Amino acid sequence: MGLQESSLVSRGLRIENGELLVLDQSALPFYEQWIRCHNPQIMIELIQSLKIRGAPAIGVGAVLSLGLFIEKELPSFEEILQTAKALYDSRPTAVNLMNALDRMVFKNKNFLNSHDPSDLPQIAVDIFKEDQQLCESIAKHGSQLIEYNENILTICNTGGIATAGIGTALGIIEYAHKQKKYPHVYVCETRPLLQGARLTCWELKKLGIAFTLITDSMAATLMQQNKVHKVFAGADRIAANGDSANKIGTYNLAVLAHHHKLPFYIAAPTTTCDPHCPNGKSIPVEERSPEEIRGVRFFGKEFTWAKDDYEAYNPAFDVTPNELITSHIFESGLKKF
Amino acid sequence: MGLQESSLVSRGLRIENGELLVLDQSALPFYEQWIRCHNPQIMIELIQSLKIRGAPAIGVGAVLSLGLFIEKELPSFEEILQTAKALYDSRPTAVNLMNALDRMVFKNKNFLNSHDPSDLPQIAVDIFKEDQQLCESIAKHGSQLIEYNENILTICNTGGIATAGIGTALGIIEYAHKQKKYPHVYVCETRPLLQGARLTCWELKKLGIAFTLITDSMAATLMQQNKVHKVFAGADRIAANGDSANKIGTYNLAVLAHHHKLPFYIAAPTTTCDPHCPNGKSIPVEERSPEEIRGVRFFGKEFTWAKDDYEAYNPAFDVTPNELITSHIFESGLKKF
Repeated sequence: MGLQESSLVSRGLRIENGELLVLDQSALPFYEQWIRCHNPQIMIELIQSLKIRGAPAIGVGAVLSLGLFIEKELPSFEEILQTAKALYDSRPTAVNLMNALDRMVFKNKNFLNSHDPSDLPQIAVDIFKEDQQLCESIAKHGSQLIEYNENILTICNTGGIATAGIGTALGIIEYAHKQKKYPHVYVCETRPLLQGARLTCWELKKLGIAFTLITDSMAATLMQQNKVHKVFAGADRIAANGDSANKIGTYNLAVLAHHHKLPFYIAAPTTTCDPHCPNGKSIPVEERSPEEIRGVRFFGKEFTWAKDDYEAYNPAFDVTPNELITSHIFESGLKKF
Repeated sequence: MGLQESSLVSRGLRIENGELLVLDQSALPFYEQWIRCHNPQIMIELIQSLKIRGAPAIGVGAVLSLGLFIEKELPSFEEILQTAKALYDSRPTAVNLMNALDRMVFKNKNFLNSHDPSDLPQIAVDIFKEDQQLCESIAKHGSQLIEYNENILTICNTGGIATAGIGTALGIIEYAHKQKKYPHVYVCETRPLLQGARLTCWELKKLGIAFTLITDSMAATLMQQNKVHKVFAGADRIAANGDSANKIGTYNLAVLAHHHKLPFYIAAPTTTCDPHCPNGKSIPVEERSPEEIRGVRFFGKEFTWAKDDYEAYNPAFDVTPNELITSHIFESGLKKF
């Protein structure tokens, strides 16, 4: 059975009648629009415009688009390499994307030797299904850390739409909720792109999990008031020493948690690990347009509150040093680097 | 000479042809509109809608509006008390407002005994002029802490429009700039109401001081990258033990500065001190509408990115414990509580 007939379905990606559909995350929470992704070039645009985002999800989305391209278009060996390289370069920080394409293409010895791409679509299916399993295992391990009625602080979106499964940090919270531990989630809005306010709240509402939205600057005062028990975040790349890159603002929360003596966890599949980065300093951090800082732009509208000539700095990620991370939560269990 | 003829002028308040004009801070940076404040009731609305804001500025604005009311309307003793009480209650956290009205009315023994309000307008003039002096003295003391070419991080707006003078924390930076120390300012945008992005950038641009706008969540990563030398913030109320309430996000910065071993200063006039609050726990913190968290609303427009039924928490201030404050900077000099 080919990828076109696979009927893979996650909360943000699905294959339907042989076509890849992607939930437009830039339109949430007000519009639930699915975009037809006809080819890898469209996937690159979706990744770069953050219509699909979340470190595991962009890896899965990339290989699905490449797999369908191979099945439908019968491209040459060189075309496959070129297309895979363009996908590989679409965003710089999340390593799941590179790892998925390495596995399917660049480190696939069989393919590199034979130039026969017929097994590649199945690898995309495998990566999708494995990511679901990874999420499930992370959730099972991580949920053991959550006690009845605890307040959990989180940042950005690490839920079902950020992966092929139930998510990473948010998947843990969902799992704990299903175990009737009823966590209350404090959601950092996650400026500049507001993935917390737009996406995490949307997911939590659908799941029936209680939450309170805050600005990123309110996390400290909540901790001071003893309203936070634990912090869970995701990761876009984990260096060999455990230093972890994640959405800008995560390192801030790690310092706050440390100061308030609260546990701070990073939840991610091992596909997020990059042994080629010895430590956080070697993780490339994407810098995005200053326009994102001067206002917001969603739903086909824009609202600006700072003038065009106000200089702004916009690193999309920060790096939390391993010593501030209580534990990483992988599919294999907790790990203290 | 009466208050009507006084021609007092600051960057955000002025008396012109006997009328009080207030710069509409909610319209900045795109529109520089001055609102005619015909009576204290309008001043209350301007304070509550944050068209005028900044702890010293609302104190000065309140007594100017009351002084003009007394000169023009010749109200009775009871009317004066009532009006002063309404101004007193217009916002709960900044104590400069209460202190200014106490001095002019509620603790003015001469007035309370004689019921003769004829001296009251002059007290408003005195408060205005003294605030200018206080800013100047704070700036002089504080600027000694800034070395050539240092990077200063600040939050909210503590400049000329927040006071009757050159400001508190931002006044220090302006003073250092005039001393040719050329500080570079990192401006926290200051969600939810973006006083940093809208007001501080606007003031710095006018002053020709170099700055970079960031989201509040980026302060930590800047410190990690050794891009910040010192943090300067203002205060809305300072308890007897030095604990200081200021714009939400300030305590966050104090924890970050502590972790990164950076000096963290609070600059304010002594009119910000409240001896009746033994410590930060007794400072009342204003909680504002959750709508401010779900989007933004300026310039007669609104932009919402979170749904109405997403619960949100919106404390307008936080409290930094004295032990995280390297020093307070008052008009009398540095003070370590």
